[in-house]
This record gives sequence, structure tokens and C-alpha cells, in this order.
Amino acid sequence: MSFFPAPLENLVEKFASLPGIGTKSAQRLAFHILSLTDEEALDFAEAVAQAKKSVHCCRICQNLTDKDVCSVCASPSREKGTVCVVADPKDVAAMERAGEYNGVYHVLHGVISPLSHVGPDDIRIRELMDRVAAGGVEEVIMATNPDTEGETTAKYISRLLRPFGVRVTRLAYGIPVGASLEFADDATLMRALQGRQEI
Amino acid sequence: MSFFPAPLENLVEKFASLPGIGTKSAQRLAFHILSLTDEEALDFAEAVAQAKKSVHCCRICQNLTDKDVCSVCASPSREKGTVCVVADPKDVAAMERAGEYNGVYHVLHGVISPLSHVGPDDIRIRELMDRVAAGGVEEVIMATNPDTEGETTAKYISRLLRPFGVRVTRLAYGIPVGASLEFADDATLMRALQGRQEI
Repeated sequence: MSFFPAPLENLVEKFASLPGIGTKSAQRLAFHILSLTDEEALDFAEAVAQAKKSVHCCRICQNLTDKDVCSVCASPSREKGTVCVVADPKDVAAMERAGEYNGVYHVLHGVISPLSHVGPDDIRIRELMDRVAAGGVEEVIMATNPDTEGETTAKYISRLLRPFGVRVTRLAYGIPVGASLEFADDATLMRALQGRQEI
Repeated sequence: MSFFPAPLENLVEKFASLPGIGTKSAQRLAFHILSLTDEEALDFAEAVAQAKKSVHCCRICQNLTDKDVCSVCASPSREKGTVCVVADPKDVAAMERAGEYNGVYHVLHGVISPLSHVGPDDIRIRELMDRVAAGGVEEVIMATNPDTEGETTAKYISRLLRPFGVRVTRLAYGIPVGASLEFADDATLMRALQGRQEI
């Protein structure tokens, strides 16, 4: 039973439907909206509607964009021959923040996960194949997460890519910068040893 | 620097401006909005706009409502002679949940707090005085929080009410139901002892 007026209760429910927001937090957020000026509240509503309306996937790399082609794909200074394959648009943001990479991306929007009923046809693998088949791609860098599902997806895609004769690589495993050997897990240490490099 | 399209970045900023939501959470919420159907996202935007537009204060008790007079004030079964004074609309919800109270409310929308520059004229004390002056009120129950500011506000209002000759009471202090004496603080124990009742 609700003790708030219906439109407020509705807003509380909407906030509570967001991930990680419980009823108490949702109430606090809804009351915060009421405390805004009319203009600020309408701005908020407009931001929600506008983001959903204008953001879609880049025609080429499937990353999120509000244009036909995303800013990375549209940039003349990026090397179009190198494609970094990531699971999620947030991973593109992480790579861009690092500032080291000058190629382009391909966003899968998920990883193959039989337990969650996500098969190869449910993520954007076909689009990647079409891109490679169209030519011009020299190297595909697999940058899915280093967990079972990310690994499986990377292996699966690299097998599909074999007939095209492009170079397929994987982000290096190893000790994170700033971490201590003492607390590194066995699997990471083993991979770091296998991937050791000349200094 | 942002690596998301502008409308998405704008939505992330809007979420991050809400209380208790950091940048990472704001990103997660914004991506959740993108994952909704068009209809669900528009519903969300509409809920924000609608709550702000249609929710205002009840003409009589200052509680939040989307009508001219709130459901409590409009109910013929509530005793209009008993007014429970609370600081916040959430306190009305808490009292209603308890289900014991059958009078009406007055919401102050704050407490007197010199440190935060909130004086008696900044909260709805005048409206309460007008209500009592208009007659028909027999008892005013002070139900502000049992902290310094809540106490000060209750004391201040009870002094203002003295000339009207209405009964002014205060919610009982004591041991919370289910708590243990061992962990009760001194002030609460002292108040519980002072307020002891015949059984």
C-alpha cells in the first residue's frame, strides 16, 4: 500500500526498477526530483528520452553513437586495418582512456554464454565477419574479458577468422601494473611467466 | 574527456547529479536506459516530468499530493481535531505504515536549524498557526525527530501554540521495540525511565 500521491509513487517504482537501486534509494531519488526546479526536472526527463531516441549502434563497428558512423570510425587518423574486438561499449571507453590504441573497434554487445542462453548468433559476430570479408583488415585484436566466456568467444571468433588469413592477436595477460606478486593468483602468474619478454 | 556519444554522456551526467549516485553507477543506469524498449524509456522520462508537474503540497496539511487536498485531509473518517506535526512527507508515510494514527497531519518541510540557516520562517510554521487559529484543532502532536533540531522545532512551535489553548503533546521517548537494554544509550534509558507507565 502506498502513502505517496500516485505520480510520485510511479516515479519511485521507476527508479526502483533500475539496477542496484532499492526502494529507499528510489524514494530519495524521487524526492530529489521534486526538489529540482521545473526546468531541471524537465531537462532530466528530456535527457532520458533523448538518449534512448538518438543513441544507436555505429553502422560499421557497432559501438554506440548518435550519428550514422561513430567518431572513431569517422576519424581519418585511425588505422582502419586494425580492429580491436570488445564485448561492450564501456570497453571501448576504457581502451580510449588508456590512449595507446590507434586502430578501430568492433563491439560484440555480449559474449557467448551457453549458461545464459547467449549463442554466437545473439552477438554481433556476423557483422565482424562481413567487415573482414569486405577486405582491408590486417589484424584483429581480441580484447574480450579474460574469463571463461570472454576466452570462449575469442577462441570461437579466431577460428572463424582463420580462412580470411588475417592476423589474430589477444591482449597480453600478466601482472597488473602496480600490483604485488605476493597477491597475484596462480593463473595470472603462470600466464605472466609464459608471456615473459626481453628487457 | 568523454568517449560516449553526447546524448548518452548527458544522461550519465544527469544520473550522476542525483544524490548518492557516482559516475560508475550513473553509467550503469544510463546503459540500462538504453537497454529498455522505446516505450519503457519514454515511460521513465514521462514519470519524471509528470511527478514534478503534478505533485505539490496539500492546501491544508502541506503534505505532498497530486490533488487540491491530500487523501488524509479529504478522508471523512480522519479526526480533524488531532494534528500530528512532522518534518517531512516521508514521516507521514512512516506514521501511516504504522496504521495506528487516525488524525490528520501537518508537514513542516524541514526543521529549524540555525547552522543550516533555516529559521522559523523557512518552514511551514505559519500555515500551522493559521490552521490552529481557524479553530477546530484540539490536540497537536509534535512528531519531529528526537534530535537537537527536531526538539528545538517542537519546543518553538509548542510555545507559539500556548495562547491558543490547544493540547500539545510529543511522541513518547523510550526503548525501541525489539531492542535490548544493554545497548540502549544513556539519554534514551533516562527518557524511558522518566516516561515509565503503569502496566
